[in-house]
Amino acid sequence: MDLIIKNGTIISPVATYRADIAVTDGKITAIGRNFPEEGAIVIDAGNKLVLPGAIDAHTHLAMPFGGTISADSYMSGTRAAACGGVTTVFDYPLQKKGMKILDLINDKKAICEKEACIDYAFHCCITDLNGGEILDEMEKAVEEGITSFKCFFVYKKEGMMVDDGTFAKLLIKAKEIGAMINIHAENPDLIDLNIEKFMKEGKTSPWYHYLSRPEFVEAEADKRAVHWAKNLQSPLYIVHMADKEGLEAAIDAKKEGHEIYIETCPQYLEFTCDVYKREDGRNFVCSPPMKGQESQDALWNAIKTGGIDTIATDHCPFQSYEKDWGKDDFTKIPNGCAGIENMYPYMLSAANEGKITFNKVVELCCTNSAKIFGCTEKGSLTVGKDADIVIYDPNKEFTISVDNMHSDYDHTIWEGKKLSGYPVMTFSRGKLVYKDGKFLGEPGWGKFVKRVGRN
Amino acid sequence: MDLIIKNGTIISPVATYRADIAVTDGKITAIGRNFPEEGAIVIDAGNKLVLPGAIDAHTHLAMPFGGTISADSYMSGTRAAACGGVTTVFDYPLQKKGMKILDLINDKKAICEKEACIDYAFHCCITDLNGGEILDEMEKAVEEGITSFKCFFVYKKEGMMVDDGTFAKLLIKAKEIGAMINIHAENPDLIDLNIEKFMKEGKTSPWYHYLSRPEFVEAEADKRAVHWAKNLQSPLYIVHMADKEGLEAAIDAKKEGHEIYIETCPQYLEFTCDVYKREDGRNFVCSPPMKGQESQDALWNAIKTGGIDTIATDHCPFQSYEKDWGKDDFTKIPNGCAGIENMYPYMLSAANEGKITFNKVVELCCTNSAKIFGCTEKGSLTVGKDADIVIYDPNKEFTISVDNMHSDYDHTIWEGKKLSGYPVMTFSRGKLVYKDGKFLGEPGWGKFVKRVGRN
Amino acid sequence: MDLIIKNGTIISPVATYRADIAVTDGKITAIGRNFPEEGAIVIDAGNKLVLPGAIDAHTHLAMPFGGTISADSYMSGTRAAACGGVTTVFDYPLQKKGMKILDLINDKKAICEKEACIDYAFHCCITDLNGGEILDEMEKAVEEGITSFKCFFVYKKEGMMVDDGTFAKLLIKAKEIGAMINIHAENPDLIDLNIEKFMKEGKTSPWYHYLSRPEFVEAEADKRAVHWAKNLQSPLYIVHMADKEGLEAAIDAKKEGHEIYIETCPQYLEFTCDVYKREDGRNFVCSPPMKGQESQDALWNAIKTGGIDTIATDHCPFQSYEKDWGKDDFTKIPNGCAGIENMYPYMLSAANEGKITFNKVVELCCTNSAKIFGCTEKGSLTVGKDADIVIYDPNKEFTISVDNMHSDYDHTIWEGKKLSGYPVMTFSRGKLVYKDGKFLGEPGWGKFVKRVGRN
Amino acid sequence: MDLIIKNGTIISPVATYRADIAVTDGKITAIGRNFPEEGAIVIDAGNKLVLPGAIDAHTHLAMPFGGTISADSYMSGTRAAACGGVTTVFDYPLQKKGMKILDLINDKKAICEKEACIDYAFHCCITDLNGGEILDEMEKAVEEGITSFKCFFVYKKEGMMVDDGTFAKLLIKAKEIGAMINIHAENPDLIDLNIEKFMKEGKTSPWYHYLSRPEFVEAEADKRAVHWAKNLQSPLYIVHMADKEGLEAAIDAKKEGHEIYIETCPQYLEFTCDVYKREDGRNFVCSPPMKGQESQDALWNAIKTGGIDTIATDHCPFQSYEKDWGKDDFTKIPNGCAGIENMYPYMLSAANEGKITFNKVVELCCTNSAKIFGCTEKGSLTVGKDADIVIYDPNKEFTISVDNMHSDYDHTIWEGKKLSGYPVMTFSRGKLVYKDGKFLGEPGWGKFVKRVGRN
Repeated sequence: MDLIIKNGTIISPVATYRADIAVTDGKITAIGRNFPEEGAIVIDAGNKLVLPGAIDAHTHLAMPFGGTISADSYMSGTRAAACGGVTTVFDYPLQKKGMKILDLINDKKAICEKEACIDYAFHCCITDLNGGEILDEMEKAVEEGITSFKCFFVYKKEGMMVDDGTFAKLLIKAKEIGAMINIHAENPDLIDLNIEKFMKEGKTSPWYHYLSRPEFVEAEADKRAVHWAKNLQSPLYIVHMADKEGLEAAIDAKKEGHEIYIETCPQYLEFTCDVYKREDGRNFVCSPPMKGQESQDALWNAIKTGGIDTIATDHCPFQSYEKDWGKDDFTKIPNGCAGIENMYPYMLSAANEGKITFNKVVELCCTNSAKIFGCTEKGSLTVGKDADIVIYDPNKEFTISVDNMHSDYDHTIWEGKKLSGYPVMTFSRGKLVYKDGKFLGEPGWGKFVKRVGRN
Repeated sequence: MDLIIKNGTIISPVATYRADIAVTDGKITAIGRNFPEEGAIVIDAGNKLVLPGAIDAHTHLAMPFGGTISADSYMSGTRAAACGGVTTVFDYPLQKKGMKILDLINDKKAICEKEACIDYAFHCCITDLNGGEILDEMEKAVEEGITSFKCFFVYKKEGMMVDDGTFAKLLIKAKEIGAMINIHAENPDLIDLNIEKFMKEGKTSPWYHYLSRPEFVEAEADKRAVHWAKNLQSPLYIVHMADKEGLEAAIDAKKEGHEIYIETCPQYLEFTCDVYKREDGRNFVCSPPMKGQESQDALWNAIKTGGIDTIATDHCPFQSYEKDWGKDDFTKIPNGCAGIENMYPYMLSAANEGKITFNKVVELCCTNSAKIFGCTEKGSLTVGKDADIVIYDPNKEFTISVDNMHSDYDHTIWEGKKLSGYPVMTFSRGKLVYKDGKFLGEPGWGKFVKRVGRN
Repeated sequence: MDLIIKNGTIISPVATYRADIAVTDGKITAIGRNFPEEGAIVIDAGNKLVLPGAIDAHTHLAMPFGGTISADSYMSGTRAAACGGVTTVFDYPLQKKGMKILDLINDKKAICEKEACIDYAFHCCITDLNGGEILDEMEKAVEEGITSFKCFFVYKKEGMMVDDGTFAKLLIKAKEIGAMINIHAENPDLIDLNIEKFMKEGKTSPWYHYLSRPEFVEAEADKRAVHWAKNLQSPLYIVHMADKEGLEAAIDAKKEGHEIYIETCPQYLEFTCDVYKREDGRNFVCSPPMKGQESQDALWNAIKTGGIDTIATDHCPFQSYEKDWGKDDFTKIPNGCAGIENMYPYMLSAANEGKITFNKVVELCCTNSAKIFGCTEKGSLTVGKDADIVIYDPNKEFTISVDNMHSDYDHTIWEGKKLSGYPVMTFSRGKLVYKDGKFLGEPGWGKFVKRVGRN
Repeated sequence: MDLIIKNGTIISPVATYRADIAVTDGKITAIGRNFPEEGAIVIDAGNKLVLPGAIDAHTHLAMPFGGTISADSYMSGTRAAACGGVTTVFDYPLQKKGMKILDLINDKKAICEKEACIDYAFHCCITDLNGGEILDEMEKAVEEGITSFKCFFVYKKEGMMVDDGTFAKLLIKAKEIGAMINIHAENPDLIDLNIEKFMKEGKTSPWYHYLSRPEFVEAEADKRAVHWAKNLQSPLYIVHMADKEGLEAAIDAKKEGHEIYIETCPQYLEFTCDVYKREDGRNFVCSPPMKGQESQDALWNAIKTGGIDTIATDHCPFQSYEKDWGKDDFTKIPNGCAGIENMYPYMLSAANEGKITFNKVVELCCTNSAKIFGCTEKGSLTVGKDADIVIYDPNKEFTISVDNMHSDYDHTIWEGKKLSGYPVMTFSRGKLVYKDGKFLGEPGWGKFVKRVGRN
């Protein structure tokens, strides 16, 4: 045994119990008590919780977008992840029109091999079928462990939108090859119509970012995506669900037996659209935008009642000077916010305060993401799985600040947020990569997570 | 008094009662008993029902479509209408890209002035905003009594589809100027995807016309149209509703207080998609196609429970040789069927057999259409309104055949349909235009119905 | 012709039009223009509306209840009705355990023959099947024109409740003989539980009347009644619907095609439960009590969207000294309020202010009640029907006060309510019974309305 | 270590993995690999599944009912349970009117101490509040580890029904003291009405057992129970859910965030009401009866989509001669069927055939029951919990017959049912109590499971 974590309270999705964990060669090899300690690093987790490392199934690292590149590289982004208890990230490489997706993924893999501080997987964003050849490429991608593909109902002007026909082709293909389609659901036509109108009227503050894509504009796209998935009998994963009406339609389809999965993000659980009225409202600009209180309540209710499957971040930070581009025109603000280091502490703090259970957090941030996306070695503290482990001190108080984060961005929407409890150690495959506020890992440690398909 | 119809049983949407009707100068001037008969034509309607003339709010006369022109001219179409108890038709002039709509309407008016045998109104089909100028033209159209405009969610390849942004602009404009938007709701992308697939697979029979646009393909578009109308708080009229899921979504919106109106057609009430398996299935090809039994049952239930507002025909017949173009390829069949002369007798026969009440038929075929579309002088047998009157013999048996119809088409989907009861006279503004199977009217009698807007 | 009402604007459920009405022998004999006026009383209704007399389908006159008798006799109650534009009342004779219902009805008829100032019909309240013999009596009652029977889900302690088995027997019998069951739906067990609790806690103000029978306590009984009616496929009429959840369940059943009818009362449309916090809250005590704003909004929405079928009053006033019995204990307050003279003016005022149409008011207060309950001679201004006519001045302002009412009660919950527009004349079968604030009729004029059954 | 189960595949509610289990002093002390085997009994579970022992949360052992006593004693019933992989049973002692519940439970405990072959817990059936003193007793019962109480909406004539008021009192009390109310939901009035009618008509076959309590009669009671629980904000556990409409209402309430739990039984998943048309239909008579295919489909769908929380048996067998009492009159058939030994094998066979996952079976039959009812030491194979373990051979074929069962009954509704896979060993707290068809345990081994409340 290389590592023993003892005296802690282990949190699984279904149980909370006292036991020790033994790790050998990066794997969990035993859970029990009184393991022989010779030759092992022994960590005393007394009065602490022992949790699986989180999976952030939605990040945009080093992504070209809004006329710039998102502020976190694969290096800094995965470093921050580790410091927030995340041990696997799923990045979203973005196909440009005409580009082959295997090339795209291989490029990204090459970068991550050098930079990634924790393990990584890829969903691939498809914007163009290249006359159909991408459908063939998808099969190869699945063989190589890329088993999920995202597309956009939005970003029509930007040339990234897929129409309903392309979406249907993707759903049908995905079902056939055991893959999953992820959808960013907002309606571009209404957004563009609203923006055009607001620009004419000189309404340029961030509040109009929200008003140009309000609840019903997201809901339409959610409902349409669900409708096609249901009727084509294909699985569907809806990313960053933020509105009540779309959420309820998706949950109704699940109840009927359709394989619909729903992700939401901490920013939608913490903030409402009121942030866009703030002086620094531009910093909160992301798409979809935060919505009203009713939607936020519905998201929390769905978390409690099983309607939501995963929490991820949509991490896509931009620097202050970039956000400032839109000071006088919300359409010029690069869309995206930081979150990779905040997700797990934020959700665990909610548990620590009694809003939900710790088991539920593990289910949402670890187990479900692993299961839905085919990460067989990840997602829970189970004998045989990777020793991706977080030690959490429920008594540690923490106030988020850009100063205590480990990314490369220069501000955060989470500034000043007080958390009750905080991770004190993160192990990636048995290796200590974070401790008490300090990153201890190294670029290149992270490995590609080859995933298994659904068939 | 010019005309007295006596001893009949009058049917209003809410009452059935014995009384005589007196007509002067084309208007109903009194309802009562024992009117002085000097100088009047006196019709004895003993043992007959006396009904308002029907409004067929959905026809395509002399319409260029599917590579040809629909088989009924404004002359033959309105002649047939009169013989089926219809005293007002709403035709759908179709804007070609770049065309001005007022020009289009004036062209149509000029034709109708010469040809129309009964009164006529126009909805105008908009396929292109011409950079926005059509929105301005709409205001003028309303002033001239054209208060409703149709657009298509379908026919993308054909260049007739409006996208969601254009649809939203139309809804917003219509609301502002007291007009109504009518929508043909089917999803073009899925239809095209299906057709492409079926063509590849050599599946070319009319049955694949249905399978390329099944229930869920219509339902998506219905739900989307309702979603925008609800959230933009604009009135919406859905033409030729044919599927259960879309119907129920529309009815739910009505129940919430939204101003959604629903039209269906006799063909959806009589036939199911099974007709496309028939030898002569191509003759039944129209869009949307007939659907399954469950949808038909839902339509009848909605008729009984107030969910459906109007019955109209989507009359758009083609000759046999034109239908035959698609003998070996359903995509080559011109879409459309006859109905203008069958609607009222069909619905009245349903009442005569006890399926619904005569009052309900009057409501659906006359009163509601007049009210929804602003025909103040039409729609019921009320003192002061136009004397558009039908005398109906509930004891007359009738079997529909192309031989006893008064159109120019050479076949009908209604061939062989037995009806219980049949109209024996039609009066248009007091003038007898049809009697006992014979057309007695004349082209040019019909007048343009100038409608009032909603504001 | 005996009477001509000319120059007015006639309101039917579906049309608003200018015409004159001629009356002969108490019946409407013609609607038209320029009738010969010799020998007729001629009323000029210029600038006025001409409406059918209203039907108040829910009154409790001279009813023993709450330890006393309701304040209006058949004489004073029908007098007040006439002055409020009501030309037919449906009273609810209440069977005591063991009593025969035909005896009960005959007793009531005898009283009304002498006292009634307008026409009257009876629903009969059944509290006990007398071992089944009442089921047989119901058949005879239908033959005599009593075609509807009410029962209570509430008043268990008072011995008036029917259990689900008895209710089912009544539904089954009613269906068989073409009759209708009316239900007062509240759950007695929860009410009694709440009252017991409040009494123990010394919570005795009228506010606890509301809290002992809040929304969900009514909703349960509504839903249960609808459930049985649906599944036994019997028609059902729910009296005085006051809560949103029950309302929506009933409307859903209607939409599915079940024959469910819904009545609400003006007090639920005007007042919310907040009245029970007023100093004079006890005067508003009735059952079911007024509910919260959300329920009131739902009732108005259902009126607009066709969910509600009728408006009636549940008129059951008590004198101030009787209401005062419950000054210190809400359980001692006789339940019931005045309304018979206020219903029609209140609803018409809502129309006059643009909230709904006048046509809708006629539908709710006249036409539907007549149709649902088989009053073939009543409910609309149609040739051949009784000349029950109201002339309404839309420009007359009126403030309700006990001083300008024509009942025998000494206070009213409507005190101070300002109405826009007011009836200026009421005709009962052609006879002027009310004019400009004065009752002009006479006891004994009213006739029993023999109704037709549903089969 | 006393016991090592090695080489097996462990099934948790969320994971399937290869590992060994070590047991010491009846507890699971480690999960891992290569444990030192000295002094331990070593079981090779190669090619086998290793599962937690099941919890049958619904049994009626030695219960007086229908004029006799159910055929399994605590001894034979728990023996059969062990042989079917069940390691904990929850029995339902039934209060007679006036009886104190603590006395009742203590009597049962005394019997079980001698007879029980596996661990046992009690829900307590309450039929009478004894003027309120039972509410006080409930508090003491919770302290003693009896944290759930059942009541009946049915069995009115039998004096066992609680009315809505009593039910509300129980819900309120249970919430206050951290207990749970279980409800048997059927409507007695409609059942009695139907029975009375069928008896009159001479319809006495078991098919009329079903027709006297069809879907809608159960659904009403389900919906009412859910309505009260929702509005009183109390947790509720619905036993033996068997109909679609009630199921969906309960699931809707869960979705809204209400704490509603739903149990169903294998008999409702396997049989439909058609069994009552069989020659031996009487043997299938239980309450609620099996329902139609639509309900069965809904139950399976709810199992898959998370709507159903637990599977239990309602085990209550009667001997053939007792069932025969109702040969000519279904009302004389004692209600109840066998199931305790069949539940786990049946559900696991469904998993083995791919209908659901093994993880789902563990969740339904073990984990959820333990969690809902506060059995902290039971429900999953987790370090620290009781070593209640089942070894399951997925390749073993098994045909159920009364001859290979271990109860005292003389026939079974499951006769002839072929299962794919079967348990080969059961351990109760580390002790082997069943192996390869043979019971190896002993009466008196079973211990009382003291449960923790919800507060």
